Amino acid sequence: MSEREGVGIGLMGLGVVGSGVAKALTSGADAITQQVGCPLALKAVLVRDLRKKRAYRVPRALLTTDPQRLLRDPSIDIVIEVMGGEADAFRYMQEAIQQGKHVVTANKEVIAKHGLELMRLAAQCKVDLRYEASVGGGIPIVNPFRQDLLANKITAIHAIINGTTNYIVTRMAAEDMDFATALRQAQELGYAEPNPANDVEGVDAAYKLAILATLAFHTQIRPEDIHCEGISRLAPRDFRYAKELGYAIKLLAIAKEQNGSVQARVHPAFVPEHMLLAEVDGVFNAIQVQGDLIGRVIFYGQGAGSLPTSSAILADVIHIAQNIRLGIPPKPQPQFDAPKKILPISEIKTRYYMRMTIADQPGVLARISRVLGDHSISIASVIQKEADPSAQTAEIVIMTHPAQEAAVQKALRKTVALSVVREMGNLIRVED
Amino acid sequence: MSEREGVGIGLMGLGVVGSGVAKALTSGADAITQQVGCPLALKAVLVRDLRKKRAYRVPRALLTTDPQRLLRDPSIDIVIEVMGGEADAFRYMQEAIQQGKHVVTANKEVIAKHGLELMRLAAQCKVDLRYEASVGGGIPIVNPFRQDLLANKITAIHAIINGTTNYIVTRMAAEDMDFATALRQAQELGYAEPNPANDVEGVDAAYKLAILATLAFHTQIRPEDIHCEGISRLAPRDFRYAKELGYAIKLLAIAKEQNGSVQARVHPAFVPEHMLLAEVDGVFNAIQVQGDLIGRVIFYGQGAGSLPTSSAILADVIHIAQNIRLGIPPKPQPQFDAPKKILPISEIKTRYYMRMTIADQPGVLARISRVLGDHSISIASVIQKEADPSAQTAEIVIMTHPAQEAAVQKALRKTVALSVVREMGNLIRVED
Repeated sequence: MSEREGVGIGLMGLGVVGSGVAKALTSGADAITQQVGCPLALKAVLVRDLRKKRAYRVPRALLTTDPQRLLRDPSIDIVIEVMGGEADAFRYMQEAIQQGKHVVTANKEVIAKHGLELMRLAAQCKVDLRYEASVGGGIPIVNPFRQDLLANKITAIHAIINGTTNYIVTRMAAEDMDFATALRQAQELGYAEPNPANDVEGVDAAYKLAILATLAFHTQIRPEDIHCEGISRLAPRDFRYAKELGYAIKLLAIAKEQNGSVQARVHPAFVPEHMLLAEVDGVFNAIQVQGDLIGRVIFYGQGAGSLPTSSAILADVIHIAQNIRLGIPPKPQPQFDAPKKILPISEIKTRYYMRMTIADQPGVLARISRVLGDHSISIASVIQKEADPSAQTAEIVIMTHPAQEAAVQKALRKTVALSVVREMGNLIRVED
Repeated sequence: MSEREGVGIGLMGLGVVGSGVAKALTSGADAITQQVGCPLALKAVLVRDLRKKRAYRVPRALLTTDPQRLLRDPSIDIVIEVMGGEADAFRYMQEAIQQGKHVVTANKEVIAKHGLELMRLAAQCKVDLRYEASVGGGIPIVNPFRQDLLANKITAIHAIINGTTNYIVTRMAAEDMDFATALRQAQELGYAEPNPANDVEGVDAAYKLAILATLAFHTQIRPEDIHCEGISRLAPRDFRYAKELGYAIKLLAIAKEQNGSVQARVHPAFVPEHMLLAEVDGVFNAIQVQGDLIGRVIFYGQGAGSLPTSSAILADVIHIAQNIRLGIPPKPQPQFDAPKKILPISEIKTRYYMRMTIADQPGVLARISRVLGDHSISIASVIQKEADPSAQTAEIVIMTHPAQEAAVQKALRKTVALSVVREMGNLIRVED
């Protein structure tokens, strides 16, 4: 930091989020200066293409395609990484830290996969690494875990942290729409990428859950520790049955700690209508946290978008800039070395919704319930209707009492093998 | 802080919240030690009565009725004030700060009335003053305003921040119950005080709103700047009409900034059913914040109670204790000197619900709407029903388009003076 020019900022990436940050740093500069006590000066912006037309125009002289211009510039105190992707972003962040620069990032993939390594490096180099924007867009959630919830033993997280999929399931539920149509409309509105796999298969939510669960349980939860199912198998009839039974269907990111072992999973789930999470619609996100002291808290807001994400990034930047101005060293990152077992999905216990097409003849339910009973799965309720006379089939929906996943999967294989079961429709876990 | 014994804590008050804090400091000590990096040691507890039986037993040797035992003890680094009340608590906090001790408080009244004075004193004495627990119990909201939302220009706060009144209106709405009965049941359950005035008249909510609005708008909002109406005038029929019109009724704490002037008010309000705030039931609290970058965020959770409040207090204590251990000076408090005009209630503009008893005869609505029209108040919808043949009266409900409060009050006086208007039932503002 130079006295005259304030805190120097280097920005990596000038896409949707980067443009929002650049705009806020320039047009909102006065308010930020007042908070920090000195100005923030945007020194350089790393882009891939110097000539690209952009929504927000940054002075041409600041643009560069050379990362070293940022990494080697001694007047840059803080590097903001919003370029996305894994390998390059990770390498640049490492190098920035090694050059003694503080780093603020929105990169969930890099933090989920390499966060602990970056934090160790930052501690060695005595710089700060902050990543509030990596989960939940503008919603404060990373910093609350790092400070406000610290006195709690966290027992559970239930989160809607992917706006694309929440938009799709909201449309499917409200308009009896199929998945492909809802996805296409989300793409037309810019809520889904041309290649939507990362969102609809739950990968994006799993990265974010890895970050939250690591913070919550003080132990490293990696993306590969998270069981992950997307929403592409959901059918309009699943939403109709859910509504009839008093539930919404949401893509939930769930992490729990019980008896020293942690489970973490992303999948569609039945959520009781009376829970606030069931009311979180469209592109909004919500993170519900349960702790021994706090009970249940929910953080709700816009989980993506240029301005909300900028809000989170700038909060981290202001925090670091205040510290720089006051000569305050960064606080140590929380400890993530509590030894905890990761529970495989086969060992979790929950309630299930099962939908299947069966032969429309007497005694079918008895045969199915016998198979389930043989695997210690007990039935809570059954809906049978919509017989199709031409095919001589009917549809049956079974809600179970809590059962173990491994037993359910085994029982389902046996059920599907029954001659009277024509097709397994869907299996959805219930969270209440 | 002594090396051997860690950070010394003095606790003022051993009521519901104080007992929760004392318990967490002792039984949850290991987890806290891990977060802080050294133990926290409870050195003394100020109580009024040494002999009183308590839910949580603190070693007798720690108890004292003499505040000076805490204020003069050099081994006490942090004073936690949870004794409540105004004058004594304020004086002890001043003295603690002057003695170089950091202060953590849950005292909304003292912070709302004297917070800025205490902050100035703390800055002079180079100690920290934190008050996360003063609003919203365990819900992180003060610290998010001080950090996570800093890059935003906040435009509005809509908050349910009094659990007692929210419990009462939830019961009234769900069970068609009158105010007196719902209040009595809240008292029986311990959700309302024997003398409930502070809660039901909105005073408690106004203290909390003063704290939030001051943080949000960077200018001092005092309790006396806040227009305050309680819930005791609400009738079961108001809830019935609200439901019919698609609204819930909540005691809202509202603060807005428009064109450089700030309005702050606490009163019952119609809230559209589709807003999440309308779904916040029972003793739960929720604070909705709107900002230019972040859009709309909501913080939801338990607004009171021993454990949630302890969670907030301990987060502040851990924060300060980490700083003590690392030799980090407290960050300056935010600036609260932005010059802003406070809008009197007479100048606000909103929509209104009006309920009145009228003579059951032709032409009444025409006469009322003429009076309203004369004051530039335009009617959005009307419900008239429930004629009482014996009294020859009917009840009429009018929803207006946005109108100015002063005009509405003037028009109402003229309306009530009409011979055909028998009684003004209620006037409730609409927030959407």
